Amino acid sequence: MNKNKIRPLNLKDVVIGGPFWSHYVEQIRKKVIPYQWDVLNDRVEDAKLSHCIKNFEIAAGKRDGAFYGMVFQDSDLYKWLESVAYTLAVYPDADLERLADDVIALIKAAQQADGYVNTYYTVKERSGRWTNLQHGHELYCAGHLIEAAVAYYNATNKSEILEIAIRFADYIDTVFGLEAGKLKGYPGHQEIELALFKLYEITAERRYLRLAAYFIKQRGQVPNYFDLEAKKPEYKEIFPEITPLARTYSQSHIAPEKQREAVGHAVRAVYMYCAMADLADELDDKDLREALDALYTDITSKQMYVTGAIGSVAWGERFSGAYDLPNDLVYGETCASVGLMMFCRRMNAMYMEADYADTMELALYNTVLAGISLSGTEFYYVNPLQVEPERIKVNPNFSHVKIVRQKWFDCACCPSNLARTVMGLGLYAYGSTTDALYVNLYCAGSAQDGARKLEVETDYPYGNVVKCKVSGGSFKLYLRNPKYAPLKSLTLNGETISPKIEKGYLVLERDWNDDVLTICFDMQPKRIYCANEVQQNIGHVAIMRGPLVYCIEQVDNGPLLGTFRLVDEDPITAVASPKGLSPEAVALRVPAYQYRQVEEALYTKQKSNLVPSQLTLIPYFLWANRGENEMRVFIPSLPRHP
Amino acid sequence: MNKNKIRPLNLKDVVIGGPFWSHYVEQIRKKVIPYQWDVLNDRVEDAKLSHCIKNFEIAAGKRDGAFYGMVFQDSDLYKWLESVAYTLAVYPDADLERLADDVIALIKAAQQADGYVNTYYTVKERSGRWTNLQHGHELYCAGHLIEAAVAYYNATNKSEILEIAIRFADYIDTVFGLEAGKLKGYPGHQEIELALFKLYEITAERRYLRLAAYFIKQRGQVPNYFDLEAKKPEYKEIFPEITPLARTYSQSHIAPEKQREAVGHAVRAVYMYCAMADLADELDDKDLREALDALYTDITSKQMYVTGAIGSVAWGERFSGAYDLPNDLVYGETCASVGLMMFCRRMNAMYMEADYADTMELALYNTVLAGISLSGTEFYYVNPLQVEPERIKVNPNFSHVKIVRQKWFDCACCPSNLARTVMGLGLYAYGSTTDALYVNLYCAGSAQDGARKLEVETDYPYGNVVKCKVSGGSFKLYLRNPKYAPLKSLTLNGETISPKIEKGYLVLERDWNDDVLTICFDMQPKRIYCANEVQQNIGHVAIMRGPLVYCIEQVDNGPLLGTFRLVDEDPITAVASPKGLSPEAVALRVPAYQYRQVEEALYTKQKSNLVPSQLTLIPYFLWANRGENEMRVFIPSLPRHP
Repeated sequence: MNKNKIRPLNLKDVVIGGPFWSHYVEQIRKKVIPYQWDVLNDRVEDAKLSHCIKNFEIAAGKRDGAFYGMVFQDSDLYKWLESVAYTLAVYPDADLERLADDVIALIKAAQQADGYVNTYYTVKERSGRWTNLQHGHELYCAGHLIEAAVAYYNATNKSEILEIAIRFADYIDTVFGLEAGKLKGYPGHQEIELALFKLYEITAERRYLRLAAYFIKQRGQVPNYFDLEAKKPEYKEIFPEITPLARTYSQSHIAPEKQREAVGHAVRAVYMYCAMADLADELDDKDLREALDALYTDITSKQMYVTGAIGSVAWGERFSGAYDLPNDLVYGETCASVGLMMFCRRMNAMYMEADYADTMELALYNTVLAGISLSGTEFYYVNPLQVEPERIKVNPNFSHVKIVRQKWFDCACCPSNLARTVMGLGLYAYGSTTDALYVNLYCAGSAQDGARKLEVETDYPYGNVVKCKVSGGSFKLYLRNPKYAPLKSLTLNGETISPKIEKGYLVLERDWNDDVLTICFDMQPKRIYCANEVQQNIGHVAIMRGPLVYCIEQVDNGPLLGTFRLVDEDPITAVASPKGLSPEAVALRVPAYQYRQVEEALYTKQKSNLVPSQLTLIPYFLWANRGENEMRVFIPSLPRHP
Repeated sequence: MNKNKIRPLNLKDVVIGGPFWSHYVEQIRKKVIPYQWDVLNDRVEDAKLSHCIKNFEIAAGKRDGAFYGMVFQDSDLYKWLESVAYTLAVYPDADLERLADDVIALIKAAQQADGYVNTYYTVKERSGRWTNLQHGHELYCAGHLIEAAVAYYNATNKSEILEIAIRFADYIDTVFGLEAGKLKGYPGHQEIELALFKLYEITAERRYLRLAAYFIKQRGQVPNYFDLEAKKPEYKEIFPEITPLARTYSQSHIAPEKQREAVGHAVRAVYMYCAMADLADELDDKDLREALDALYTDITSKQMYVTGAIGSVAWGERFSGAYDLPNDLVYGETCASVGLMMFCRRMNAMYMEADYADTMELALYNTVLAGISLSGTEFYYVNPLQVEPERIKVNPNFSHVKIVRQKWFDCACCPSNLARTVMGLGLYAYGSTTDALYVNLYCAGSAQDGARKLEVETDYPYGNVVKCKVSGGSFKLYLRNPKYAPLKSLTLNGETISPKIEKGYLVLERDWNDDVLTICFDMQPKRIYCANEVQQNIGHVAIMRGPLVYCIEQVDNGPLLGTFRLVDEDPITAVASPKGLSPEAVALRVPAYQYRQVEEALYTKQKSNLVPSQLTLIPYFLWANRGENEMRVFIPSLPRHP
């Protein structure tokens, strides 16, 4: 066990609030969690049918009927429960806890005598258990059950859900492994590996660590298990429309420790990398670490959008190849960026380097938060960087792109994933080692780790000042120096100091006793340029202010956003937020030129005129909150003198 | 019957040759037609299996075996035969004629007692005749049989194939119509309508005109015939992967005369418009004419690429919506541009306006000729305006785009369509009325219409001078004044004259007696700008020289073509063709700037440098003749002073 590692704080000891985060925390607590509960119970009109609770009731023998929904429908309930657990950890709520306890009782009633829990295979495909690991999602759902169980136990100290999870995990341990008589398989959708690691951490039972390691190490062995199982007579197709799948889709083409390029279904990939990082650290596995280093570099240097979105390709919800980052065709699933945050948190924990937390912050403030409307009840699954509504309506290549956020999805992974991330944000924001406290995200609120205590006042990422009151005796404080908003000045109890910078952190060590740090970050708007290999962005800029990527919307600037041209080096000014967005949001204004057509014709020898104009930019994650309209992140920029 | 109409000359009286066209005529005669014959007989290694001749032999009882291929496989043979007919009209060839006669005997042997000919429904789905008009392509294949028959009869005066076609048409006439007991259907893929019109023209039998009109007028009536037939017990799916199809796909959503926007499968659409134009003119049908005017305007002002390609969307090989003209995702099927030429020829014939012939020329010299390699044995089905090979290889959105031309296709409509178009080019190049001769395309060679005679010397579209020797007495000569290369000067027997210009034609009337006209066109390279509604092309230019659209290729300019920037008003110079292309081709050179990245990173605050450079452009139709490489037509252009 690696002692030298950043560990998350107990969520009970972290409060996230302030001008920026209170809105989201309140939305999730007061709207999203109740809304999702209504959806799970099929009580929301116009939303896609969930049937999730009914599936459990049928599996528990409490109701007649047929299974309905995706093969992984159960996971929606588990992710809801995980969000509830994170909520209860900070905001005790007897009614909500009672509801959760009832859900747990329902899950228990649906658990089979041998410990197995899965409504699809209990209600619909009774003889199909473990026959289609590639598509069946049983181990995926089991993983989400375990994650919810660990979270709920941590929040409430109630062990019932943990016992359900343990019985299931113990049963799974009897089914899978290299020992004679066991299945040599592994999940089509990774998730259980990182969950088993959490179960290992909370129970200290090494069997779960070994089982997680088995699932990772067995993956991609030759012959491929998915090929073998598909030849068995009991095998039954679940998604014939995507068969046959390349082995890269599920990252089972080669052993994980040999993987160097991020390929396949993006969520599967990053969930697997999470478990690989957990194991690499715990088992001090050099091969896994080498793979992780390469995979992280591949993603961040060749396959990630400027918004922290990953997975360019809708077909297979997957990574494309190096530099294939189309702004309009993009998939960029909200869940994939949640998974990227999870992966980055683990890399940061292992290496204690700020760069991973920079990427985590980028994904959070841009793609993940873009996943939810300001109203809290509409969601994005796909997160484009450029939208032309009229083209999306007519061209089927864009059928995955939604012009406005949706109430719910047939495949409803993203809203619940987003909710658990926001309510569990304390796990991402802070960390500790034996002698240090780490601040990875600047959120107003407080954090405690034993005697060590931080009180944080800030309206970051809109504002550039973070005030921290620190106490708790002698320890090192590691403050991330944000890549996109580096330190401008720092005062300790009013006096300017120059901290040591180590692995991207400002490091401050003293005997803390209600000392006040005032950190001022450079939040000047910046032009961000893309590598020339991403050809459609050559000569374009994305504008960032701190970690926030900005975009232009038609509602502020008029139609045909492609007619605008910035000019290199023109000043970018922070201005008040346009009406209809959060009043505290910071918008930007920049001079621009606009092409005006002279002759109305599809093709003409007559050049358009370039007329002076200006553009208003808003934070990308706030786009599409004011109805259907055009949007783009990358804007062409003219040189002053060609 | 409309007397005041441009009628094509007899192909026997037209020779197409000279520096530009000899190459293509010779390629088609000496390579493509024999190559296609080998393909039809499954004798080309590495090419997709055709099985076409075998299907006919099986249907004729000359061979055992099963049908193989597309439901419309027969049409490949008919289009080959049509190309052969056009070839024989100008280049008598006893061996080729014997081969064609054998083919005709084979078709006759495959014809059923009632006149029906179709190998799929004779060999494979014996009880399925006329049960799936939407997808079965029986009437489509019948149309191509009739077109081939008319062409072969015109070329050879042999009537056997015409008799086969007439027997089939007569049988079809007993099956379809509004009379009691007849099927009220029409083809899923239009083609027979224009073919029946040709049969009517050659036989003067008005039944064929009425049947063509029935097929057009019955289309889109409520209830939709395709809905009705799909409910019948004998209905069987042929293309389950594209079911259900929108009614717009086959232009059967409303009656043709009510259609105002080009929708659905592009080839079906333009083939239908051809028949509508034939009928509108012959029957003096105002409603059809009103529809045709709107459809032509919709295509050319909102839905056509600068290369004359049409049909933006791969899924359904169809039109998208207004201004949705992606350069990279484009479909732009070669056949659709052949169909556009066919449509334009008929509109030109009806209205006697040059604009239609301008569009025809654009489609011909750019998209249609891009369909064939310089070597004559590789073909394009899809004609993109922008290609980044690395992205095409990894992103499935581009799976329809081929980086290099292909030897053959499962669906092999395009190579044969291209061959019949080039060999039948005389039908497009000239036309006549009672008192006039029309020149619509400038091709070296000769043309005769009764006593009227033209001898043409030119290397157009590379050169800008056309010399015509005209004789044959008193008639009006209409010379198209090309939209993209308008008249610069004209001499008659060495003396400059200023001709009257009428509907886009230079009109010259005299008693012609070996008079020599020397026409000089403006071939200065031009920048072409696209409407702002096509947002990805804003601030970009396409460069044309005469009717030729130019492109840049990696092989001449290096990789990352997106790094280049032109500057508005910089001079464009004609230069010799790069090695590996036709030596007579004219290339262009233009100063440019190129973005050079300063910091190697996916995202950076460091702006790229703009360094002086230059670009070599080649005619678009010659792209991809020098291996796999990047290509683009639209190039960003910087203003001199922003």
